[in-house]
Amino acid sequence: MNKGLLIVLSGPSGVGKGTVCSELRNKQNDLVYSVSATTRVPRQGEIDGVNYFFKSREQFQDMIARDALLEHAEYVGNYYGTPRDFVERTLASGKDIILEIEVQGALKVKEKFPQGVFVFLVPPSLDELKHRITGRGTENSDVIDSRMSVAVQEMSLIRYYDYAVVNDQIDSACHRIQSIITAEHCRKDRFISELESVKEASEKA
Amino acid sequence: MNKGLLIVLSGPSGVGKGTVCSELRNKQNDLVYSVSATTRVPRQGEIDGVNYFFKSREQFQDMIARDALLEHAEYVGNYYGTPRDFVERTLASGKDIILEIEVQGALKVKEKFPQGVFVFLVPPSLDELKHRITGRGTENSDVIDSRMSVAVQEMSLIRYYDYAVVNDQIDSACHRIQSIITAEHCRKDRFISELESVKEASEKA
Repeated sequence: MNKGLLIVLSGPSGVGKGTVCSELRNKQNDLVYSVSATTRVPRQGEIDGVNYFFKSREQFQDMIARDALLEHAEYVGNYYGTPRDFVERTLASGKDIILEIEVQGALKVKEKFPQGVFVFLVPPSLDELKHRITGRGTENSDVIDSRMSVAVQEMSLIRYYDYAVVNDQIDSACHRIQSIITAEHCRKDRFISELESVKEASEKA
Repeated sequence: MNKGLLIVLSGPSGVGKGTVCSELRNKQNDLVYSVSATTRVPRQGEIDGVNYFFKSREQFQDMIARDALLEHAEYVGNYYGTPRDFVERTLASGKDIILEIEVQGALKVKEKFPQGVFVFLVPPSLDELKHRITGRGTENSDVIDSRMSVAVQEMSLIRYYDYAVVNDQIDSACHRIQSIITAEHCRKDRFISELESVKEASEKA
């Protein structure tokens, strides 16, 4: 009872998952962040163990072999994955945990945790998405085109998610996600065992 | 597109549906209140057309005959019902509407509007429920016992609802219901047609 919720925040590359996730953690400091492992090169300012666990391909493949990842996927030439034990320990302790992961990884998590809450972060428009990816200034145009193509394909996967949150304004997106978390805690299944005990107590009286 | 949500707020008699509903409308003045029709005698302070449309049994039976009610039920000797046209016009105009109704009526609405959002307001305990019913000071003890018995039976119907909201504090209950409304507006189905148009625009470019 009172187990934590697994919130899976996904969406196309460049939609702003990282920014929204950071802001959510600022607003709600009891929300545990699941740090992903990746083989991609750190961007400026990213800290190992905070933004990602940065791994070599050899290290990552060893984690796969040890079944130490809840999911993993190769995306635009890099591995991304979710260390399994951290997620499982957090849920068992009754805390909510948020996974910020790529679309393919999220769907693999769904296979193992269908009871998770799957949130797809949506760009206001594809133009805006391209602007954000280009605006990073860290990639060449082939990478941008490849990412845009992947992003369009990924959008069709929204049908496997529970919620779609438009990232038009960070504060609005965060408010919607916080509302989703609150609402999911109110799902009737969480209350049914509690109600059964109330009813039994009444019948004894 | 952008049709309003039908929010059905129900729960056992005396749980505080009316108080929570009033406070919700204070906090969120774009939320339209569906005024129910009833044959029960007005309580002190209740206003016809605001709290309820108070009807004689003859008037109510005429509404049934004209199919002018979305649902109706007899409860502790009185009729309660939801005028159909007001609900349908509100939803069509894109506004959210909240129905505050008895448990039986809510389930009938569910048959006609399965896409509604069904919220069951839960007392913190049955003792607290009894205290609230007694505390009204407007009913005799037979009526109270009858209501308690019905309330316990009604609680088992929570399995037909989507959400259970404990009415421990009015502000907390309202915050949870507002979160549920926000979350339901983010359900992926509402966004899929929008995403399809974004994708088409990209393919033309």
